[in-house]
Amino acid sequence: MFRPQIKVLDCTIRDGGLINKWQFSDDFVGKVFHALSSSGIDYMEIGYKSSEKYFSREENGDWKFCSEEDVRRIVGDNNTNIKLSAMADIGRIDSEDISPKSESILDMIRVACYVKEVDKAIDLAHQCLDKGYEATINLMAVSKVLERDLDEALDDLSKSDVPVIYIVDSFGALYSEQIHFLAKKYFEAMPGKDLGIHAHNNQQLAFANTIEGIIAGTNRIDATIYGMGRGAGNCPLELLLSFLKNPKFDIRPVLEIIHELFVSAKQETEWGYHIPYMITGVLNEHPRSAMKVMAEKNLPNFKQFYEELLDGTPLE
Amino acid sequence: MFRPQIKVLDCTIRDGGLINKWQFSDDFVGKVFHALSSSGIDYMEIGYKSSEKYFSREENGDWKFCSEEDVRRIVGDNNTNIKLSAMADIGRIDSEDISPKSESILDMIRVACYVKEVDKAIDLAHQCLDKGYEATINLMAVSKVLERDLDEALDDLSKSDVPVIYIVDSFGALYSEQIHFLAKKYFEAMPGKDLGIHAHNNQQLAFANTIEGIIAGTNRIDATIYGMGRGAGNCPLELLLSFLKNPKFDIRPVLEIIHELFVSAKQETEWGYHIPYMITGVLNEHPRSAMKVMAEKNLPNFKQFYEELLDGTPLE
Repeated sequence: MFRPQIKVLDCTIRDGGLINKWQFSDDFVGKVFHALSSSGIDYMEIGYKSSEKYFSREENGDWKFCSEEDVRRIVGDNNTNIKLSAMADIGRIDSEDISPKSESILDMIRVACYVKEVDKAIDLAHQCLDKGYEATINLMAVSKVLERDLDEALDDLSKSDVPVIYIVDSFGALYSEQIHFLAKKYFEAMPGKDLGIHAHNNQQLAFANTIEGIIAGTNRIDATIYGMGRGAGNCPLELLLSFLKNPKFDIRPVLEIIHELFVSAKQETEWGYHIPYMITGVLNEHPRSAMKVMAEKNLPNFKQFYEELLDGTPLE
Repeated sequence: MFRPQIKVLDCTIRDGGLINKWQFSDDFVGKVFHALSSSGIDYMEIGYKSSEKYFSREENGDWKFCSEEDVRRIVGDNNTNIKLSAMADIGRIDSEDISPKSESILDMIRVACYVKEVDKAIDLAHQCLDKGYEATINLMAVSKVLERDLDEALDDLSKSDVPVIYIVDSFGALYSEQIHFLAKKYFEAMPGKDLGIHAHNNQQLAFANTIEGIIAGTNRIDATIYGMGRGAGNCPLELLLSFLKNPKFDIRPVLEIIHELFVSAKQETEWGYHIPYMITGVLNEHPRSAMKVMAEKNLPNFKQFYEELLDGTPLE
């Protein structure tokens, strides 16, 4: 697959930080930055832009906040071709926490929201655009959204100035046919917008669904090194780069940093395919219950875990 | 996806035995048998049928040979609905090693061959059919086969009496579009045959490619518990059962046995996604070089490993 419009965004530090509360050493983040820029990756999402009103620096590492000083400490003036992104979660940041682009090393703000918050997200994304940033909206947990609500949100987005909208399978619950269905729906509802895809690996489908998204026309592609990310993790960057034939990409710096840092990081902080994550994925549930049992290191009886999630509390 | 014609074959012991030379305890194999039959799986492939002329019992466990006594020790008279299969590799067994079905607890022989051996495979499969067994031919390593050679093999297979032919991605090198291409080609070249699919997980695509095979019409589906299998392993049975909506299947016995046996088995005998397997997969190479470095437990520099495989020996 070679399509020059495709742009790859690596969100290893941002999504991987959901596992370790962004407690990465500067050495680690710096090496990721250098590997990604050497590999020709288009964007590095270095963390969240969050307000210190809502989150403490004692509990969370620097990449939960992405202050200018934090980011510049790693990238200097960023004299590379890679662009820098931070994610802003609706309800966890106020627009005054985002300085004008002229004062920032960041190039792009991606606004993440649930469907019910889409109008707040459009408002924040418009402010980011006005401040001079590139901006996107990432519509999370779409596998749980009723179609009527989704259609309404897409209609609002189509009228906005936000140029890129992401399909986000937060629960790792979608199959390839559903990715095609959603991509078709998004394109039809929002002519002229670019689409992106962000997949989770609960069912070992993050890479496959990303490929399906690419086949369906999405050009903004999320991946993480060695699949590092919350719970079952994300689409592995090394697999994506092998699939994309775009000559600007070089897989070798990614292979090197996996060897140097990520094999051992995965032994310390276990992400990837595990049965509790698989169960929340196939049942289309938030992974929080799986993350809880995985953190306890004392694996539950899988059958019981499945049955409890399956049955929930009887509603009738 | 619910299609009543779909039949699932579990080859955990057969393909998983390629990791540990079939050194499974009777307790392990017996529990797998009971879990599979309780889950409503259609076939259990319990091992290879191999000749003791070619392989020693000192080096290889019982499931390399699948003698009647070995199999009956586990399954008794098999008073369950699950059918039993063994695989016969061309060149590693003689037809006289396969007794008539009337004397055997096995129901099916799957004949595995490379494309150049297809006529030997047809001959052996015909003998198995004549002896009263179900028989299939599994055309291995299809990602390496030139199209002209494949077309010739499919033409020979179309004229045979063998009712089921498998697409086998031995190297874990294929993408979903290639699975569709092959399924279409196989169906067109062999009208009236049933197709099967056997995928490997080098690129985390075993489950996704199995889904694509099902969408393309294949009805004979291979999987293994927790993906256990040579190298990067196979399509995980637990994911497949969640995808298939066929009411005859019950995922819970599979979840139970993963919890009881397979989580710890995977810690001892590492299968699954690892960068050396990923590299042989994306380069469409036999996994033997990756298996060698993984067995040494001293991981190579991934970039060097990639470059050595990529460059090979200059030929010009």
